Amino acid sequence: MQRFLTRALSTSIPRTAVKDLLATAPGADASVSGWVKSVRRQKNVSFITLNDGSSFQSLQVVCDGGDDLAKVTVGSSIRAVGRVTAAPKSGQVEIHASDVHVYGTSDASTYPLSKKYHTLEFVREHLHLRPRTNTFGAVTRVRNALSQGLHAYFQSQDFVQVHTPILTSIDCEGAGEQFRVERESGAKKEDPFFGLPAYLTVSGQLHAEMYASALTNVYTFGPTFRAENSNTTRHLAEFWMLEPEMAFAGLPECMATAQGAVQNALRFAMDKCGDDLAFFHDQVAKSNADKNLLGQLETVLSTDAFPHLTYTDAIEVLQKAPVSFDLAPEWGMDLKTEHERYLAEKHVGGPVFVTDYPAALKAFYMRLNDDTEPDRATVAGMDLLVPAIGELVGGSVREDRLDVLQRKMADAGIDPTGLEWYLDLRRYGSVPHAGWGMGFERLVLFATGLENIRDAIPVPRYPGACKH
Amino acid sequence: MQRFLTRALSTSIPRTAVKDLLATAPGADASVSGWVKSVRRQKNVSFITLNDGSSFQSLQVVCDGGDDLAKVTVGSSIRAVGRVTAAPKSGQVEIHASDVHVYGTSDASTYPLSKKYHTLEFVREHLHLRPRTNTFGAVTRVRNALSQGLHAYFQSQDFVQVHTPILTSIDCEGAGEQFRVERESGAKKEDPFFGLPAYLTVSGQLHAEMYASALTNVYTFGPTFRAENSNTTRHLAEFWMLEPEMAFAGLPECMATAQGAVQNALRFAMDKCGDDLAFFHDQVAKSNADKNLLGQLETVLSTDAFPHLTYTDAIEVLQKAPVSFDLAPEWGMDLKTEHERYLAEKHVGGPVFVTDYPAALKAFYMRLNDDTEPDRATVAGMDLLVPAIGELVGGSVREDRLDVLQRKMADAGIDPTGLEWYLDLRRYGSVPHAGWGMGFERLVLFATGLENIRDAIPVPRYPGACKH
Repeated sequence: MQRFLTRALSTSIPRTAVKDLLATAPGADASVSGWVKSVRRQKNVSFITLNDGSSFQSLQVVCDGGDDLAKVTVGSSIRAVGRVTAAPKSGQVEIHASDVHVYGTSDASTYPLSKKYHTLEFVREHLHLRPRTNTFGAVTRVRNALSQGLHAYFQSQDFVQVHTPILTSIDCEGAGEQFRVERESGAKKEDPFFGLPAYLTVSGQLHAEMYASALTNVYTFGPTFRAENSNTTRHLAEFWMLEPEMAFAGLPECMATAQGAVQNALRFAMDKCGDDLAFFHDQVAKSNADKNLLGQLETVLSTDAFPHLTYTDAIEVLQKAPVSFDLAPEWGMDLKTEHERYLAEKHVGGPVFVTDYPAALKAFYMRLNDDTEPDRATVAGMDLLVPAIGELVGGSVREDRLDVLQRKMADAGIDPTGLEWYLDLRRYGSVPHAGWGMGFERLVLFATGLENIRDAIPVPRYPGACKH
Repeated sequence: MQRFLTRALSTSIPRTAVKDLLATAPGADASVSGWVKSVRRQKNVSFITLNDGSSFQSLQVVCDGGDDLAKVTVGSSIRAVGRVTAAPKSGQVEIHASDVHVYGTSDASTYPLSKKYHTLEFVREHLHLRPRTNTFGAVTRVRNALSQGLHAYFQSQDFVQVHTPILTSIDCEGAGEQFRVERESGAKKEDPFFGLPAYLTVSGQLHAEMYASALTNVYTFGPTFRAENSNTTRHLAEFWMLEPEMAFAGLPECMATAQGAVQNALRFAMDKCGDDLAFFHDQVAKSNADKNLLGQLETVLSTDAFPHLTYTDAIEVLQKAPVSFDLAPEWGMDLKTEHERYLAEKHVGGPVFVTDYPAALKAFYMRLNDDTEPDRATVAGMDLLVPAIGELVGGSVREDRLDVLQRKMADAGIDPTGLEWYLDLRRYGSVPHAGWGMGFERLVLFATGLENIRDAIPVPRYPGACKH
């Protein structure tokens, strides 16, 4: 496909992205635009570090002088036109500018990011400018690559992406943790816009099942919402979720696709964002010399089949572990992050699938296993646990038997009225089917070594945070 | 990449997708699963039409008998295992089943889609089953291909996808047409979850500008919302919007990328969904023999540069047109669909850009043109008009001058308090930048010839419609 040319305004030389310029042979004339990260002035020459977000690397612009140079401060935006050269010592490509034009100035006395180093907490307060920092430029590019890697995987497997709705009348997955939506109408209360109460979706799964019950292999990838009032490094009010759903499939297909999708996403990030990941690798090593981010990613990519154990086996492993957990492992309990991380980090040393959870712990739609003891009923559920994160993927075979599903809904106190369509999928040509969901920001954390989920999404939403 | 194998449950032969089976040479044994579209029973043999959504084409299953055959009705789901053969006359690949297993039955007396033909209105009432119809299987696959074609275009141009937020405190784009979001809290009114009123976004543009002001070329593609109480074939309460944003760019880059994105999306659909588009072509021709859907798509793909005229020129064209419009064209008026369609269908015979609209018609963020007469001030806006649809894309250069932007906001009565971050983008390193938005469902309508936007999205939301 031909590249469109972004013409630099008011100059006859088209703009070259910094990324492309750094791969150019010295000698030609070029025009480059971006934001100034630093300026070093000497008597007869100034050195400007310029970044345009096309790569982690910045470009050094060398200028002998010029009318506009006084206005070149950290945070200002400029166009530099001149000869592409090689730096005397390093051989690194730079530009020797014969013309520097300032598009927009930046008052160094008020620009929040003018100092060299800022904590992530500080930067988060200046959300609108943080994309210009090294960390947030990098995480944005990595997030993009991971997203494309997921699409590429599912498209290669002939899955059809389905844009499931955000607005839904389904409220069975946790009253009080859903956002309610109404038409803004000043003081006056109208009839509900949709004729019944509407909420923001907490999962596209049920609608993905609608389409898997006709197209076989589908996936949805979009925003989902939780109104939980949690101020933690692991929760967001709005986050992106990937949810494939497969007809004529069970746990083996869930595990195969979860591994395939995660590996392909990470491969895309490593192929396309090498400089960004090298930066994160160094950051991680700075805070803990034992940690090896790139090594861990390589290990995940080179694993043929992620190991697999049942929940019952996992409890046994945890009970025998030479570790004292905050919560003692016992059959029937929900695994906490400390348990999940132990299994991934210490027991396996990489990603691990845990399957067949106690039915009492899991949602009504998970398929009851046939061969379990009455007081130890399990469902065909599956989680993928990874180091540093814990649960990355959660999925299950879906209950496809109408009578069992109806009984489980009644047991869970779920009103079937709004879900008759979901029951219809079991009335008319019901099929064995299965699927899973992955909180996309957790994958971003896993790939980058970042620890706060608020740094893994471009514009985070959590209690009190919606002003940008 | 290696295909994962979906194992057919309880059989040693892995499941083959219908699409792949139809491309198989006769002779081998195969297992195929799907939903029954029709059954024709003869004395000693039954013919089952089976579809699994992997392609528009169904597979003919020929069975000599079997215990389960009585349960094989329209809408039931089955697995058929047997020898791949070629049909005696057509040579078409079919399967001669030695074993038919029914996964889920379907009571023909209550199955809503058991009859052969249904209007789109009828099918819309049975939203959860409509993916099994020819039309909705096809539109879902075409939508997927268009979506991937858009991603592929922007990725090839080194744009970074940014997931802009759905929840926003920005309410300046039309009070009363935005959905308000609150934590569901029974009868009790709490403090706002986010500390201030929150809404569902009507556009990701402002947040895309945040990221373009650091990464240069970005795009957002996700759901957007309008609480308009319109029951038309052109409006949805929830729809998907594609919005690229480019720094150091103007109208030429807007036009180049809009053309490139639309062409690449249509090319993907034509390459990957030939059977689906051929079906839509025939449907369109049935209702109007003069219409040539595939011909129109080919024309769009083969156009080197879509023609371009200014709003002022367009008004002149419309005033001279040998057509009586419902609303007489006059400088200063907003173009209506009748005008847009005339320009695309009659004046050009294909897509056409119209630029430089009257400032009074357009949003506060569009950049004022310098060289316009005071009483005829225009902004650097751009629309792409296409046959049958009218406006497909709308974009503009953004106002990058702080003082002009502040004046325009004041004139429009917009409180700058919640937009200080947006103004900061002009305070610190402001750059010339531009972008556009495309209502994705309009592209789906354009590609398929469908006329009601409710049929262009998997689960449509509009006043009164949220029960599925």
